[in-house]
Amino acid sequence: REEMAKSTQLIDNEVFRAFATYAAIVLLKMMLMSLVTAYFRITRKAFVNPEDTASFGKGESAKKYLRTDPDVERVRRGHLNDLENIVPFVGIGLLYALSGPELSTALLHFRIFTGARILHTFAYLIPLPQPARGLSWAVGYSVTFSMAYKVLKTALLL
Amino acid sequence: REEMAKSTQLIDNEVFRAFATYAAIVLLKMMLMSLVTAYFRITRKAFVNPEDTASFGKGESAKKYLRTDPDVERVRRGHLNDLENIVPFVGIGLLYALSGPELSTALLHFRIFTGARILHTFAYLIPLPQPARGLSWAVGYSVTFSMAYKVLKTALLL
Amino acid sequence: REEMAKSTQLIDNEVFRAFATYAAIVLLKMMLMSLVTAYFRITRKAFVNPEDTASFGKGESAKKYLRTDPDVERVRRGHLNDLENIVPFVGIGLLYALSGPELSTALLHFRIFTGARILHTFAYLIPLPQPARGLSWAVGYSVTFSMAYKVLKTALLL
Repeated sequence: REEMAKSTQLIDNEVFRAFATYAAIVLLKMMLMSLVTAYFRITRKAFVNPEDTASFGKGESAKKYLRTDPDVERVRRGHLNDLENIVPFVGIGLLYALSGPELSTALLHFRIFTGARILHTFAYLIPLPQPARGLSWAVGYSVTFSMAYKVLKTALLL
Repeated sequence: REEMAKSTQLIDNEVFRAFATYAAIVLLKMMLMSLVTAYFRITRKAFVNPEDTASFGKGESAKKYLRTDPDVERVRRGHLNDLENIVPFVGIGLLYALSGPELSTALLHFRIFTGARILHTFAYLIPLPQPARGLSWAVGYSVTFSMAYKVLKTALLL
Repeated sequence: REEMAKSTQLIDNEVFRAFATYAAIVLLKMMLMSLVTAYFRITRKAFVNPEDTASFGKGESAKKYLRTDPDVERVRRGHLNDLENIVPFVGIGLLYALSGPELSTALLHFRIFTGARILHTFAYLIPLPQPARGLSWAVGYSVTFSMAYKVLKTALLL
């Protein structure tokens, strides 16, 4: 049906398929940070909402689990850093994928960004000594800037 | 005009229309958290920027309103949780809507996610006893994973 | 090639080109907040991860740089506010651009939002006395609501 043809139009485009693949991967990676946070909150017994500690009993016995834990805070910083970097990648990457880049150039951008952000996560969580985290952040950041440059060069209408 | 025809092409697709509807609803819901935060900041007189308390006078009389408040912090955590979950839904949901799903399947995903996130907000703000917040979070999370699976199955190009 | 024609279809649409331009600008503006944060962390010597202070020596001499700084925290609040407002603009703005608005109306929305968020950043970082920050926030917020209204009016399929 024509309706169907329309809906699969973009997804038939190879650059768009590549974007969809890598965007899904980095968004899933970002979402995994929620599970890592939950894992550390439970194993470190470090919660922030009183209702989350109710199963540990009432009063003081539960209250002592309302605390911050360095490992939990570290994962949360990694998660926020993902929001600050992966979200612009997805937004700018979508516009970039629609701006008609060569498939090989687009794949290069998507692969480097995805690799850099996976490295960044390991560098943050292990943690690796600097400049591992700084460099992996800078690589992802530069890829997004490069795509934004292509978008503005192609689409510019102020 | 041809220009016009192009621009309304996607919006004529029923799955895309459903996505646009639910994406707008959950993004508006997320934005409402800003108003709830502002409401609690003003009624609890709990601010973070010195320039925000200038209307309460100068010096110590205003400084005492630079403080954290449990209700304000709770709304802010709910808002951050929305960013961590609604943003991936919008990104992955857009790719999913373009991957040619059945309208009924797509509607099921969008409706369950939207319902779960509205429940999550009430569970966080009232707050409801656990596992209300945990379960509503997990339902929304699973819906997004299900859509990501469909996107990767349809579009995979690494 | 037909593939190519498809990929540049959306980007040939003037409203979509305008959206791509302003979305790229506000996302780049948001990303700049990371650099401003890094600048203040380095000049104020205020870090949060122990591995970031290793170059200052070991033990107590480095530990004193693990601290919060009011300027760093201010930039971080501005960055979070960008995430809370620019991300919904990009999501809703994309749907709006595909809902077939007049180019002049769309440009008005995109330009006012972008101007308001740039003002908001200056109001936050300088900082300007209130209500400069509050008003610039409210203007951007209202523009996004206006676009969401158009999206729901055009696309509504619940």
